[in-house]
Amino acid sequence: MSEFSLIDIIRRRCTSSRSDVVLGIGDDAALVEVPPGCELAVCTDTLVAGIHFPLGTTAFDIGWKSLAVNLSDLAAMGATPAWAVLALTLPTDDVQFVAGFADGFAALARMHKVALIGGDTTQGPLCISVTVHGLVPRGQAMRRDGARPGDLVFVSGTLGDAAAGLQYVSGHLRGQDSDLLKQRLNRPEPRVAGGLALRGLASACIDISDGLVADLGHVAKASGVAIEIDRWKLPTSFALQSCCTSALRTQLQLSGGDDYELAFTVPAEKIDAMNDALAGVDCAITCIGRVVEGEGVRVVDSDGNEISTLHGGWEHFS
Amino acid sequence: MSEFSLIDIIRRRCTSSRSDVVLGIGDDAALVEVPPGCELAVCTDTLVAGIHFPLGTTAFDIGWKSLAVNLSDLAAMGATPAWAVLALTLPTDDVQFVAGFADGFAALARMHKVALIGGDTTQGPLCISVTVHGLVPRGQAMRRDGARPGDLVFVSGTLGDAAAGLQYVSGHLRGQDSDLLKQRLNRPEPRVAGGLALRGLASACIDISDGLVADLGHVAKASGVAIEIDRWKLPTSFALQSCCTSALRTQLQLSGGDDYELAFTVPAEKIDAMNDALAGVDCAITCIGRVVEGEGVRVVDSDGNEISTLHGGWEHFS
Repeated sequence: MSEFSLIDIIRRRCTSSRSDVVLGIGDDAALVEVPPGCELAVCTDTLVAGIHFPLGTTAFDIGWKSLAVNLSDLAAMGATPAWAVLALTLPTDDVQFVAGFADGFAALARMHKVALIGGDTTQGPLCISVTVHGLVPRGQAMRRDGARPGDLVFVSGTLGDAAAGLQYVSGHLRGQDSDLLKQRLNRPEPRVAGGLALRGLASACIDISDGLVADLGHVAKASGVAIEIDRWKLPTSFALQSCCTSALRTQLQLSGGDDYELAFTVPAEKIDAMNDALAGVDCAITCIGRVVEGEGVRVVDSDGNEISTLHGGWEHFS
Repeated sequence: MSEFSLIDIIRRRCTSSRSDVVLGIGDDAALVEVPPGCELAVCTDTLVAGIHFPLGTTAFDIGWKSLAVNLSDLAAMGATPAWAVLALTLPTDDVQFVAGFADGFAALARMHKVALIGGDTTQGPLCISVTVHGLVPRGQAMRRDGARPGDLVFVSGTLGDAAAGLQYVSGHLRGQDSDLLKQRLNRPEPRVAGGLALRGLASACIDISDGLVADLGHVAKASGVAIEIDRWKLPTSFALQSCCTSALRTQLQLSGGDDYELAFTVPAEKIDAMNDALAGVDCAITCIGRVVEGEGVRVVDSDGNEISTLHGGWEHFS
């Protein structure tokens, strides 16, 4: 089985076509057309076995996730996904793995009309890098640096589910029904429609991959502001609520990562417009805090006291 | 040392700026502008240690080569390089390696005015994927499928040097001055200017990464033609000529790979125009054969007999 056969397996399964693809897989480079008036958004993310997904994750889920984490970045920019290229490094010519991987990749690609336009398969320790391209009207991309004191802070969906799913997969949580949590770990659904709806309304936006506090920290730093989060407002799924203690839940929601939800800031005068824009979109949002003067991210409890990361978990900071 | 510090090391060393980069490294995605009338050429190539470069290759050379192999693909399309994204997976937070890698990457990026607009650094077995973007006027890209019977076949530069360099590095060749050959292995120079000059003149073009016969095989297959190569016309450096037997030389030149020269076909009536176009460009070319009816690639010797791959080397085919 050669590199070319593996590429053929992938190509046959990833059949999304787009009229703006002049030349797809199979030449030295692909050729695509960017419509006039649009900027091109480009980002790349790598998945390494045992770090970005647990050993034992199915090939389908790895394929899905490798595209999902990248589409989540485009969602955070308010960009419409268009094209992807895939660099797949595999220890062996494992046809079954490649077929499953391609099926998972293709399932999500079809949902978002993403065309796979190029790739490279090489032999080596399993490593997957995907680069995605999205389109956004000139000047309208959402960035990290626009948050201003007085803005409110929102997140989409619920937080901490994927991190709890990882606890199940790794055997640290047991005994409860964990299907939804594991689903959230293995098949994140990038908030593309939500990101598009927020364009022109959110003052800053980021996707939550490293954990809520870490990622909002990037927004605070880039914007030159501080962000206050109300711990008791964090949106929580029933599955998460029923599976662990309040202390563990807080830790998973603030630091767990892998949520692939959007965290964004919105000026108070645009809240009504935002609610209108999101009315037709399957993307629930929750206000979790506010932007203030200063720097960094503070988490406060319902008694008004700040909590902080002590001894590896979030505790009252005295 | 966190992921972000490594990215900072890379960013500080890769300072090529371009006015078409709206937003560079540091947000969820980069934003760039494609000029009107241009198509975007996109390709990706991965380097794995021990496969695409020998263990012991310097960090500088790995950085250089990771960009060079990608720019070579753009050269083969006749595209002008513009932007790159880098997915770098490293076993440890090796600051010295990353600095050397970034210096090598940046040295070549500066020569071709390529801006590094995004990246991802992750922990894992060493693996480097680079995706590059180039610009080409609409409809003018060189593809693999345009070769027609009667066209002549050319290559740029000399063949087999990098493959001989690998023989030195791995200890299979000894005793001669090998600096040029190792230089050709570790610092390939993508034929960007040559590719641009050939636009509108070459009927098909590919870069030689897997070996002359294998890569011309892709052209033959995509174009629905056969290609005949005259073995005695293969351009040979003095360094290669003086280091090995004629039989080994033939093998390295036909199958060795890692040349990163251009192989292309030109209709007879465009030969004069091609010579004019290449006059101002530092890119020597040699006619090595012709396009004929049929399929596949044949190599013939000066006595008119076909030679073929037998017992792992090229021999007379009886």
